[in-house]
Amino acid sequence: MSAPHPLDPASPQELTAAIDLIKALYDVPIHFKVAGLEEPSKEVLKKYLTAERAGTPIAPPNRLIFMMYYIKNTPRLFEAIIDVTDGKIDHNKEMSRNHYAPVDRVEHNEAAEVALNDPLVKKELERCQIGDSVVVCDPWDYGKDEFDSNRRLSQIFFYTRNPKNNDPDSNHYAFPLDFMAIIDLVQMKIVKICHIPIGAEPIATPHNGPRILGEPIEPEYDHRLQSKPARTTMKPLQVVQPEGASFKLTGRLIEWEKWRFRVGFNWREGMILYDVTFDGRPVFFRLSLSEMFVPYGDPRDPLHRKGAFDLGNVGAGATANDLSLGCDCLGTIAYLSGHIINARGEVVPKNNCVCIHEIDSGIQWKHTNHRTGKASVVRKRQLQLQTILTVANYEYIFYWTFDQSGEIEFETRATGILSTTPIDPKCTDKVNFATRVGDGVLAPYHQHIFNLRIDPSIDGYNNTVSYVDSLPMPEDKDLNPFGTGYYTEETTITKSGTLKTDPFKARVIKISNPDKINPVSLTPIAYKLVPISSQGLLAAKGSWHDKRSHFGDAPIWVTKYKDRELYPSGDYTCQSDGTEGIREWVAREDAVENDDVVLWHTYTFTHNPRPEDFPIMPAESVKIMLKPSGFFNYNPSLDVPPSTQAVNQSVRYDPTLQVGADGAVNGDKVNGGSCCTK
Amino acid sequence: MSAPHPLDPASPQELTAAIDLIKALYDVPIHFKVAGLEEPSKEVLKKYLTAERAGTPIAPPNRLIFMMYYIKNTPRLFEAIIDVTDGKIDHNKEMSRNHYAPVDRVEHNEAAEVALNDPLVKKELERCQIGDSVVVCDPWDYGKDEFDSNRRLSQIFFYTRNPKNNDPDSNHYAFPLDFMAIIDLVQMKIVKICHIPIGAEPIATPHNGPRILGEPIEPEYDHRLQSKPARTTMKPLQVVQPEGASFKLTGRLIEWEKWRFRVGFNWREGMILYDVTFDGRPVFFRLSLSEMFVPYGDPRDPLHRKGAFDLGNVGAGATANDLSLGCDCLGTIAYLSGHIINARGEVVPKNNCVCIHEIDSGIQWKHTNHRTGKASVVRKRQLQLQTILTVANYEYIFYWTFDQSGEIEFETRATGILSTTPIDPKCTDKVNFATRVGDGVLAPYHQHIFNLRIDPSIDGYNNTVSYVDSLPMPEDKDLNPFGTGYYTEETTITKSGTLKTDPFKARVIKISNPDKINPVSLTPIAYKLVPISSQGLLAAKGSWHDKRSHFGDAPIWVTKYKDRELYPSGDYTCQSDGTEGIREWVAREDAVENDDVVLWHTYTFTHNPRPEDFPIMPAESVKIMLKPSGFFNYNPSLDVPPSTQAVNQSVRYDPTLQVGADGAVNGDKVNGGSCCTK
Repeated sequence: MSAPHPLDPASPQELTAAIDLIKALYDVPIHFKVAGLEEPSKEVLKKYLTAERAGTPIAPPNRLIFMMYYIKNTPRLFEAIIDVTDGKIDHNKEMSRNHYAPVDRVEHNEAAEVALNDPLVKKELERCQIGDSVVVCDPWDYGKDEFDSNRRLSQIFFYTRNPKNNDPDSNHYAFPLDFMAIIDLVQMKIVKICHIPIGAEPIATPHNGPRILGEPIEPEYDHRLQSKPARTTMKPLQVVQPEGASFKLTGRLIEWEKWRFRVGFNWREGMILYDVTFDGRPVFFRLSLSEMFVPYGDPRDPLHRKGAFDLGNVGAGATANDLSLGCDCLGTIAYLSGHIINARGEVVPKNNCVCIHEIDSGIQWKHTNHRTGKASVVRKRQLQLQTILTVANYEYIFYWTFDQSGEIEFETRATGILSTTPIDPKCTDKVNFATRVGDGVLAPYHQHIFNLRIDPSIDGYNNTVSYVDSLPMPEDKDLNPFGTGYYTEETTITKSGTLKTDPFKARVIKISNPDKINPVSLTPIAYKLVPISSQGLLAAKGSWHDKRSHFGDAPIWVTKYKDRELYPSGDYTCQSDGTEGIREWVAREDAVENDDVVLWHTYTFTHNPRPEDFPIMPAESVKIMLKPSGFFNYNPSLDVPPSTQAVNQSVRYDPTLQVGADGAVNGDKVNGGSCCTK
Repeated sequence: MSAPHPLDPASPQELTAAIDLIKALYDVPIHFKVAGLEEPSKEVLKKYLTAERAGTPIAPPNRLIFMMYYIKNTPRLFEAIIDVTDGKIDHNKEMSRNHYAPVDRVEHNEAAEVALNDPLVKKELERCQIGDSVVVCDPWDYGKDEFDSNRRLSQIFFYTRNPKNNDPDSNHYAFPLDFMAIIDLVQMKIVKICHIPIGAEPIATPHNGPRILGEPIEPEYDHRLQSKPARTTMKPLQVVQPEGASFKLTGRLIEWEKWRFRVGFNWREGMILYDVTFDGRPVFFRLSLSEMFVPYGDPRDPLHRKGAFDLGNVGAGATANDLSLGCDCLGTIAYLSGHIINARGEVVPKNNCVCIHEIDSGIQWKHTNHRTGKASVVRKRQLQLQTILTVANYEYIFYWTFDQSGEIEFETRATGILSTTPIDPKCTDKVNFATRVGDGVLAPYHQHIFNLRIDPSIDGYNNTVSYVDSLPMPEDKDLNPFGTGYYTEETTITKSGTLKTDPFKARVIKISNPDKINPVSLTPIAYKLVPISSQGLLAAKGSWHDKRSHFGDAPIWVTKYKDRELYPSGDYTCQSDGTEGIREWVAREDAVENDDVVLWHTYTFTHNPRPEDFPIMPAESVKIMLKPSGFFNYNPSLDVPPSTQAVNQSVRYDPTLQVGADGAVNGDKVNGGSCCTK
């Protein structure tokens, strides 16, 4: 095996070496939390990558592993950086008690078992009269309130399997129970039971009777359990690449149509893109989703603690799905994997957590010259990287999409199952903070607030951020004699801070290299961010949601690059008190003009559920675009070959086509049911 | 041939019959302009469609043709409605002189020829010293100013072919000349020559020297003329549907995955969707792009007249491309055609102007139960209808996309070539109303302002429009004790008028049927419009751009349905004075609650060109969504079968795959280079 690239994710061997070095420090059991690559400093990386690009490679820096762990059954949390090249611990620090490591599945499973055996929980279940229904626990990271002072807690919501089938894959979110429990994770015991209100009014009115079981119309998403068979009307649609894929994957390096970049991975951010270049020119140094906060809008005790940092508290890498061939993408698919560690200090593979494939996205450009009738048309071929997260009930799908026109798109899809709470089916009062999605099932409003971290390298590592607005020209009989004129106004960001988006001024955020002038436009080489205009955090100023999230304050943040400033709600988000995060970083008011600048884009799904989102939610999607804006001298997709039937092999719709179950088309046997028999 | 459906477009026979009836009225030559179906009144259609849906069809109404024509070589414009069932003219009215019919290609070609033979133009060309370069005329609809009082005019811009190749398909927009001409279309003669400023300052400074020819870096989009050969790195990607398409096309009726609708066509709107139902339930009565206005932001005389209504002045149907198999879409493709008329009163087929096919859009929904490891995943299969317009330099692509989740998406892509004007290559001053896109080539800022007309029938013909905002709950120690709460507030539109979009309140526009209550959510059955938040018209209040466009004032308009109110800038947009349009309709302040209401959504591309948009523009895209919001009791895509490799036949990326020019894969001959040899 060749030496890893400095940006390659932690290997199983490296993780094991780090675990062993930490284990050797103690003669008490360790509760391991997370571990992954500690990236080299940017100064080191810049030198390494510049030399690499120049074809004169230099020695790579030592490989470092970042780790969080507890002394088992104690509140003592440590973070460590282990040099696995030299086999030594560089840093090992006990954190103060207002820091908490992420939750982990081993611990949450243990908590669920403890809960089910707890007498207080048993008493509640008895009161609920659930009969033969099997109880399902949904443990959540705790959120934050005054109750948790320096205690490591988790909150557990209770549901049952569908009483009609009692199947382990039944959708328990259609059968919520009206109490929840708080568990102390150090003592591993239930410390509080809370009743969940089942009325429409915001004031919590505890319910003390048996469970109120509704009659959901169709509670199951698993096809096997649905009341009706799947439809049979949909014919196969296959993506066929007879000559294979156009991209080349070498280790973690992807090369496709002038693009070249590396795909990293860690437990927290999952997929990370590094050193993105186009035709040899640097464009972005590092791109990743940096955090996601999911605050619920239900104001009622005990639901006010539902506010999860899905990256910092759980991890996009830790929850990444094992993607499977022909299910999660079509065409010719390459996969990349990663590794995390579990609570017992074992390496856990995250197989196929990124899939890579090409897609056809319709037309890239077209023109017909009406004088000659000549049409020129080029298709929009794209390279797509997909990762899918399962964070308890919800699924998130993230796509990085590269385009031959120099564009990069980051798409976020939200699917999965709504987190639900019970409501008395007899109550028909209006609820203005939640939606009824089933008989007796309420889905509270909530937000998914994301932050995309964009570390640019637009033709060099020093860049300038500005925003450009389109504005009407003032009335002026000489300069705007007919009132038709409009102009753009560019405002440069000179100090770290925040910005608003403004679709009503067609505002774009520009990242330019003031040292390089485009010879055609005579303006600095640049990319632009086409942001998503959305709502920030709706929770009140001063609420825990507000204090802890930081990045929900503004859609655009600009900071001066600093090593290890990667996570805008702080490195430790579980039960965080909000004292660390991006608000502090922008408050430094660093000079950021023509400097090593980082752009952060916050965007939100304000998700007020619809009945159509249950029992499983059709994906909601938003897209962020990064587009060249004077980066190139002309359309970089100009040399993409024209779209032709000879290559594309489309087929004319034949209304008389009848395919039998044996694959016979209009009575004639088809060669393997394939595309060949046209 | 069976009798046409009342919503079928005008047939060639019907158009010919109408032309003949009009011709018979006159013994002077007629200059025909446009003709197409005059739709039956909504009252008649509602009865017809209701009976049709009930399986008890009634007699269809008579077929009517709408027409505009001039008495040739006069300013006398008529509009007529001809009953081709009974062979009689129902309506034939001479329009007042402030009405002008659309431009047409025959007339514009004649105008170009007149211009090239005009002594004033010849003198300018001599002054320009263009040598052997062939001149190319770009005739534009006139816009509006004080000069045109009651005169039918056109404006012609001049370019040359690329002097290096003099090819008829060279991109003349890279070689603009610095003068233009105004032509009187009734007299067919040049009435004015204007010089185009070539500096950076907004004040027009006429240039009197020879043409200033830049050295564009890569002016050609036609592959044949490009300086470099097309890339060879892109491998084929084919969409294969071995059992054919899942949709059924019967005449103009499309049935696909519970959706059922008719596809209409006319010269003006092009593709129109009628009577859209899901699982037998009406959703939309009529959907179409109603208008597009393209005002230019260059304030300088004579460029201030560039402001084109691409539908009303030219026609989305009239300019629709003949789509070709394997070039404009992939997969199994059905086509629909239409017919228009030309200036000579001949029927002109618009072949294959709509293509219909299925696409795979990634994942529709997914959930993995972490307790059992069971993943359920369903792909997002969609039905897409595409039409492509060529309006002189620009191309517009419109997609209606139907989703199994009950969603309908309307996508707009803008591609084609920028309309350019010259700039002195020696001038390096900043231009703040245009972008330099080539040496000596300036592309002025401009807007593309679109309006989508949405005539709903949400489970019935009487609907209510409202908007729903997400707002923080007020501070309240009882009702919002932790400051976490937020709520939605719905405001009903009771009178015709306008609305703003507001992404910062996550505003959605709802169309509901107050007479039908969703049994799950206990709220009225509804769809929601997820609008595009964008900039309205930037031209000054009181400018001709402003007076004429109407619909650029606001993103959302609500009117009470009235027959023949289809076009928000009026029926006659050429040289219009702004006296007719949607401003008048909303001013009626009609009651629109639980009534036959129409929703109009205006959205804008503010297009400040990039060098990357030249010589041809990578498509810019925006999407409008119409989503069920309590229309269904649960996710309507629940019964879509799971995504499986058995059906999808994906292939694992093989880095060792090498395909020779003879189709041999790793040395082995492939069966026809197809998907079969996996």
